[in-house]
Amino acid sequence: MTGFRDDGREALEWAARYLERVDELPVLSQVDPGELRSRLPASPPDEAEPFSAVLRDVEEILLPAMTHWQSPRYFGYFAISSSEPAILAELLAAALNQNAILWRTSPASTELEGVVLDWVAELLALPVGWHGHIEDTASTSTLVALAGARELAPERRVVVASEHAHSSVEKAVKTLGLELRRTPVDDAFRLRPDALDLTGACAVVATVGTTSTASVDPVPAMADACVRDGVWLHVDAAYAGSAMVCPELRWAFEGVDRADSLVVNAHKWMLVPVDCSLLWSRRPEALRAAFGLVPEYLRTAEATEGIGEYGLALGRRFRSLKLWAVLRCYGRTGLQRLIREHIRLAELFESWVRDEAGWEISAPRHFSLVCFRREGSDEANEELLERVNASGEIFLSHTKLDGRYVLRLAIGQERTTEDDVRVAWDLLRRDAAGL
Amino acid sequence: MTGFRDDGREALEWAARYLERVDELPVLSQVDPGELRSRLPASPPDEAEPFSAVLRDVEEILLPAMTHWQSPRYFGYFAISSSEPAILAELLAAALNQNAILWRTSPASTELEGVVLDWVAELLALPVGWHGHIEDTASTSTLVALAGARELAPERRVVVASEHAHSSVEKAVKTLGLELRRTPVDDAFRLRPDALDLTGACAVVATVGTTSTASVDPVPAMADACVRDGVWLHVDAAYAGSAMVCPELRWAFEGVDRADSLVVNAHKWMLVPVDCSLLWSRRPEALRAAFGLVPEYLRTAEATEGIGEYGLALGRRFRSLKLWAVLRCYGRTGLQRLIREHIRLAELFESWVRDEAGWEISAPRHFSLVCFRREGSDEANEELLERVNASGEIFLSHTKLDGRYVLRLAIGQERTTEDDVRVAWDLLRRDAAGL
Repeated sequence: MTGFRDDGREALEWAARYLERVDELPVLSQVDPGELRSRLPASPPDEAEPFSAVLRDVEEILLPAMTHWQSPRYFGYFAISSSEPAILAELLAAALNQNAILWRTSPASTELEGVVLDWVAELLALPVGWHGHIEDTASTSTLVALAGARELAPERRVVVASEHAHSSVEKAVKTLGLELRRTPVDDAFRLRPDALDLTGACAVVATVGTTSTASVDPVPAMADACVRDGVWLHVDAAYAGSAMVCPELRWAFEGVDRADSLVVNAHKWMLVPVDCSLLWSRRPEALRAAFGLVPEYLRTAEATEGIGEYGLALGRRFRSLKLWAVLRCYGRTGLQRLIREHIRLAELFESWVRDEAGWEISAPRHFSLVCFRREGSDEANEELLERVNASGEIFLSHTKLDGRYVLRLAIGQERTTEDDVRVAWDLLRRDAAGL
Repeated sequence: MTGFRDDGREALEWAARYLERVDELPVLSQVDPGELRSRLPASPPDEAEPFSAVLRDVEEILLPAMTHWQSPRYFGYFAISSSEPAILAELLAAALNQNAILWRTSPASTELEGVVLDWVAELLALPVGWHGHIEDTASTSTLVALAGARELAPERRVVVASEHAHSSVEKAVKTLGLELRRTPVDDAFRLRPDALDLTGACAVVATVGTTSTASVDPVPAMADACVRDGVWLHVDAAYAGSAMVCPELRWAFEGVDRADSLVVNAHKWMLVPVDCSLLWSRRPEALRAAFGLVPEYLRTAEATEGIGEYGLALGRRFRSLKLWAVLRCYGRTGLQRLIREHIRLAELFESWVRDEAGWEISAPRHFSLVCFRREGSDEANEELLERVNASGEIFLSHTKLDGRYVLRLAIGQERTTEDDVRVAWDLLRRDAAGL
């Protein structure tokens, strides 16, 4: 164990130093495709190497090939954070290597998962009594929810979602052998309830916080229609769900209490490293009907259910530990503070864009995502994005709205300060002027 | 960062101490269902707590509710190991929080995953050029492979597998809306090729190392039939695949070179903590046809593919890092040594059972799994299992073969020594005598 303690000290120090200097590293990796591969041996070693050699290569070879999601100036897609307590909880989880294939193979992992899902349900003011469990990503959570919906209405083969629903809905629908019906959106990128057609539908997916603009579908109207026609309502709040820890933002969850399932990614805006997607359902028996197979070698005297009966994977790592560590080490107020600060920064950036000639806001701002563009051609905006990203100073991503190329600035990194947002704005204006 | 360094030191020391004393802890958790939950608060804290409070509760509250997969006397299901370099690699991965949704969002994670899958392919003597990527569990890997098969032959709705194929095959088939045709096995629990009916089949699943007995399906005959009828052959070697690092065991992979896809779980017998399931395919274009959706907000200038195009999940954590750490810190010879020692211990245990009156071997032993029973009733064997497991000294699981209750002793923990196996045998004999 001397080796483990010594190697561990080195690894821990490397991680600490990484977090201290991540703001000095180019946010978007500057390597070319294939460059990393060419720097690594084509074959594995025959003989053991010391861990210090691995750590050296992480620093010298891997680090330049990383895009730094932990950088305070990472503003792409949805920005995420792996917080310090969660990092250490992952160390513990790996050491413990619990595998909750059944309750008895890890009562701790099985029961803690239920407890922390209840805790988060309370923080987000979800209805009492929903069954929660953890999946890897929202892609899987949505697949699991839609499989539950299909189970209840096997003759109905259509899933309805807005044009702005995440691509994972299309993936899940295709995987399940169902058919996706895209519903048009209004001028604020929200599903148009007047265009909702539930003919032959087994499920409707409402998005609270779409990927392109963080728009919020009209869940109450969608819930009305679903209740009327007996259709499963799945709510995808992968990004925005965490914001419901703040009561003043809960307008966005109106109607969600009537959903049949809900996904919120704790690895997006709840300080937990990937992967940790939270799936709740009001109808867990449908998930169990879809996935609950108990072969002989898994039958036990306790007959206590395993979480695997509610999803695809049988093996399950101890994901709840990191979420538990975050909930305790931040508390309700710590999580609220994070969300509120990120929204304040987004509002600030939005105001700068709005007040500056030659720039425009491209979609109503919700939460911590600002969609904007330089007035002018799509090509100029695309070039602007490539240029600021190539600088390594900041990283933003883009989308298309009504056919126009639009930049997205997403705030979600724990380390992001007002100075970082100002750096982004200054750089955007400077590079735009130089185009 | 002082907090992180101090908390990290405590967490690391706790992990080191855990690994030092895990052999003294009851292998199977001795708590009752609900006991852990009742010891945790019903609500999350409002205010932040120090990380040391979390660590204290891991020790005092969670630890008694754990079944110790890291114990040298864990012999249940398939025993697994989380090795020291892999534990530290998970710490690094959590600190880096790479999310490889696209190549550009983590060239390091994207390319290292390709490199280590090539490395393992070489170690296992797989054909050159197969496309490999990592999924969470074999359940997902098999789903992805069968989705690829369905894509190539959408009009054929049957998947063929043996009666002894893993329950995850049934789950995947059901999820994909396909139909499972179970093929009978011979007296050594291998699929009977003369009973193989490929009518309407889009895929056949061959298992190398079944869950009940580690039996090996006749892959060459199954490959012949698949090639003849143009049917996708998926090989499930989740457990036994890692053993192919030893040339003397490669008889078990005969014919696998003609498979269309193959799953091996590095988190089973390759010293990597859950989850890390390796999926190779000879036809990656089929996986891409099944899962490759690239929405606008994910399109990038490099047009370099993301691994997510080959599976369900879009978000992907840096799983390759722990596998890379293991491959380097053990090397080919270290992995061979582990496999050979585990097989030696299983052979030894098998010989003890065989030579003892009143006991019988219930299935041919393959690799490191011994299926055995006390002569007599199923009830007596079941009681014996409950009794030895309740002791906390060892943990074994069971299966049913030809309707009879059978005990399984699976060796796969890195810490397991000959003494541990002897403890298991002494305890089994003692408790059997007392029944």
